Amino acid sequence: MAQDKPNAHAQDKDQTLGIMVKKSADFVEWYNQVVLKAGLADYAPIRGFMVIKPHGYAMWEKIQEYFNKVLDKRLVHNAYFPLLIPKSFFEKEAEHAVGFEPELAWVESRNENPNDAEERVAIRPTSETIMYDSYSKWIRSWRDLPLRINQWCNVLRWEVKQTKLFLRTREFLWQEGHCVYATKEQCDKEVRIILDEYKRLCEELLAIPVVAGQKTESEKFAGALYTTTIEALMPDGRALQMGTSHNLGQGFAKAFGISFMDEYKKAQTPWQSSWGFSTRLIGAVVMVHGDDRGLVLPPRLAKNKAVIVPILFENTKKEVLQKCRKFERELDDLNVLVDDRDQYSSGWKFADWELKGLPLRIELGPKDLEKGHVVVVRRDNGKKEFVKDKDVKKRVPEILEEMHAEMFSKAKKFLDSNIVEVKNKEEFRKAIDSKKMALCYFCGEKDVEAKIKEEFGLTSRCSPFGQEEKEGKCIFSGKSAKSKVLFAKAY
Amino acid sequence: MAQDKPNAHAQDKDQTLGIMVKKSADFVEWYNQVVLKAGLADYAPIRGFMVIKPHGYAMWEKIQEYFNKVLDKRLVHNAYFPLLIPKSFFEKEAEHAVGFEPELAWVESRNENPNDAEERVAIRPTSETIMYDSYSKWIRSWRDLPLRINQWCNVLRWEVKQTKLFLRTREFLWQEGHCVYATKEQCDKEVRIILDEYKRLCEELLAIPVVAGQKTESEKFAGALYTTTIEALMPDGRALQMGTSHNLGQGFAKAFGISFMDEYKKAQTPWQSSWGFSTRLIGAVVMVHGDDRGLVLPPRLAKNKAVIVPILFENTKKEVLQKCRKFERELDDLNVLVDDRDQYSSGWKFADWELKGLPLRIELGPKDLEKGHVVVVRRDNGKKEFVKDKDVKKRVPEILEEMHAEMFSKAKKFLDSNIVEVKNKEEFRKAIDSKKMALCYFCGEKDVEAKIKEEFGLTSRCSPFGQEEKEGKCIFSGKSAKSKVLFAKAY
Repeated sequence: MAQDKPNAHAQDKDQTLGIMVKKSADFVEWYNQVVLKAGLADYAPIRGFMVIKPHGYAMWEKIQEYFNKVLDKRLVHNAYFPLLIPKSFFEKEAEHAVGFEPELAWVESRNENPNDAEERVAIRPTSETIMYDSYSKWIRSWRDLPLRINQWCNVLRWEVKQTKLFLRTREFLWQEGHCVYATKEQCDKEVRIILDEYKRLCEELLAIPVVAGQKTESEKFAGALYTTTIEALMPDGRALQMGTSHNLGQGFAKAFGISFMDEYKKAQTPWQSSWGFSTRLIGAVVMVHGDDRGLVLPPRLAKNKAVIVPILFENTKKEVLQKCRKFERELDDLNVLVDDRDQYSSGWKFADWELKGLPLRIELGPKDLEKGHVVVVRRDNGKKEFVKDKDVKKRVPEILEEMHAEMFSKAKKFLDSNIVEVKNKEEFRKAIDSKKMALCYFCGEKDVEAKIKEEFGLTSRCSPFGQEEKEGKCIFSGKSAKSKVLFAKAY
Repeated sequence: MAQDKPNAHAQDKDQTLGIMVKKSADFVEWYNQVVLKAGLADYAPIRGFMVIKPHGYAMWEKIQEYFNKVLDKRLVHNAYFPLLIPKSFFEKEAEHAVGFEPELAWVESRNENPNDAEERVAIRPTSETIMYDSYSKWIRSWRDLPLRINQWCNVLRWEVKQTKLFLRTREFLWQEGHCVYATKEQCDKEVRIILDEYKRLCEELLAIPVVAGQKTESEKFAGALYTTTIEALMPDGRALQMGTSHNLGQGFAKAFGISFMDEYKKAQTPWQSSWGFSTRLIGAVVMVHGDDRGLVLPPRLAKNKAVIVPILFENTKKEVLQKCRKFERELDDLNVLVDDRDQYSSGWKFADWELKGLPLRIELGPKDLEKGHVVVVRRDNGKKEFVKDKDVKKRVPEILEEMHAEMFSKAKKFLDSNIVEVKNKEEFRKAIDSKKMALCYFCGEKDVEAKIKEEFGLTSRCSPFGQEEKEGKCIFSGKSAKSKVLFAKAY
């Protein structure tokens, strides 16, 4: 590690204290301590806002890097639309307006020239309206379709509920994809393709298993024809929505005057999709994988996959450090750090890097030097492995892949064992009370779901895809139900 | 090119029209047409705002990719701070407050709970104040320094002047670096390191030469000790500020209560720097390199370095396309496109890709197939070269590098030949009237610069670095002047 490197994390003032509460004892407090002490984020001076610190932002950059490749493969192009949206735009699509109006932050009028008053504008809560205004100018012919655009940006929703770092803040970062198609079929197809890509991102990058499915009418996006979603289960029994992909139907197109000439020169209304995930994914990683010692980074998400900690004694310091540098170069692809800070003991360093969640710690002292090996310690389970010097370059990446696979399968087991199929309201209540997700037949009607919310304090997560096609009877209303629906308390 | 690829640029409705005015005849109109018709950007529905379209945003992504590597090398870490800044923060540093107050966009009070009123907040015009509030919490000891953080974000300045796409918009994208050091020496040093990196970015990525120097007192950043800058010359004789790097001194640290314990446990005030460049770099690329046929992308900045245009006839179509695919794979690193669109003629395609500025066009027809070569055409000078099939993989990247070098040296020649050293006000006026940059001794005093602005309608660009150390007499005030200063009209 170069002289300056420790400063990367200099801002973590309380790190020496470690996590002061067990994950199993006080999950909420544990989560906050990990986020703050591992240097992922901090509270901002304005209520409801957060600062994403370098160690947390590096996770977001890894997610962006992964997903930009997906976008490229799916022929989606990045662009950037304005932060501010005119009032009249929100009013064009009725359901959308009702959905977002309460959370808008409006910009003060400047009244510079009363004869030339500018329209009232709000900070974007999502960009459907401002983007589709441009789309209506850009799309003319079937040749212009499909149009596939994504933007990475900040959005603002003036929530009044209590702030939770990464999970509920008034401003957050996200990506929002907005596509236009000639036919419903293509739109349907690509709505699912994106949801599948989201699922893959969670599983292959974050090592978090999810349930993919369709939202009920009550829970779909404001203005959408239907919403598909991926839902993960947190250790406290609450579901976390990890990403959504909507078929918007033709409502926005009609509201914003988007139309195209088909191959027979006939004017047609196109179909639209929108889809997004946000920085709350970082919160999910903390909750799912973290432990009593702090953050545990899934190997593929970690910028620095390992830290080499030299065990330093006066008379062997030079040789040990030389060997560390050698391995640093050999493992260059893994962005391995060498923690050669003089002012801290090895034990302090171990705890520090465990708190920050680096996947592997590689220990190297004079005895290891003699024996021609290093000690590799996995962050997730503490498993130690002695790796011969000549095998380091090959074995370390293998250990990382094993770690990813085991972290995922552990989380998958937890998810699978916490989905309970229930046949009646009693079983439903029991499942929810024991912090499980309840799967049951549900008619999907809005007023029935409203009553469920009143009675049980929760809403549906989704109707999972891949169910056996079999009708049943709604356990709440007794009406016929086309499919089973998953219920859980949610973030 | 896959079936869908043409839609990447589907939004360019007027592209068939081409650029309708010569660059030399009406520079302003030419610029707007290139930006709009090449699909780089569009006007937004709110005055003063722009939409950055995929072809323009891809340039920004290339700049980010390049500069993120620089940040990594310089141990600067990316992070993200809130969009909104409390009123009281702006008032802490007096000069900064005066500098930005007129351009702030304030958020309307929500008055939800009058007993719990939230402070008035504005959308960030730059983030010194909100970041330094956090820094004051994070920095305690000399071990925490240097602290080096950058953020990529949107900022908003409510300009009243006329909008110019990429060059003057109320919202723009940028990076802002904010570092804290224990000593003035280290701060000075790194202020210059960053400026040098900016210069390198302009020269090595954008093929745009710049003059590096220090701003005068009148032109420095609001709240800075001093400001360094890089300035490029546009073809219309106006300078464009491409990036600035400020030594902020200790003023912000004092205003925000940032202090640290030194190694002797004595409280000290640190030194700070900030530095940034924005999406206006894209405007500079358009202006410097573009021509009467449209955009000319410097090769290293182009996402797609070349387009292969097959010359299609019914009986040879299959073989020609097969060969095109072969070269597409061979040149995979260069993100080469194959334009196999049936509905357009080759001539139309040539013009289309010229408008969009792709560095190379590779033509391949039945005759070329027979002869075992392709025709490579450079976008900047139209030079054709026949390249044997077996040489394509090696020769095409070479041509791209030659193109970069020649584009840069052409621009360098233009810059050098347009800096005129002047000895008196008559020569100064003559230089400015003939759209050149005037270099002359200037005392640097604020009131003298104010008079220059009144008389000539321009301000100073910078005092270039690397001058012979020799005092002279200010050509405006007759006072003694420590160095020569460069003047030009500016964007």
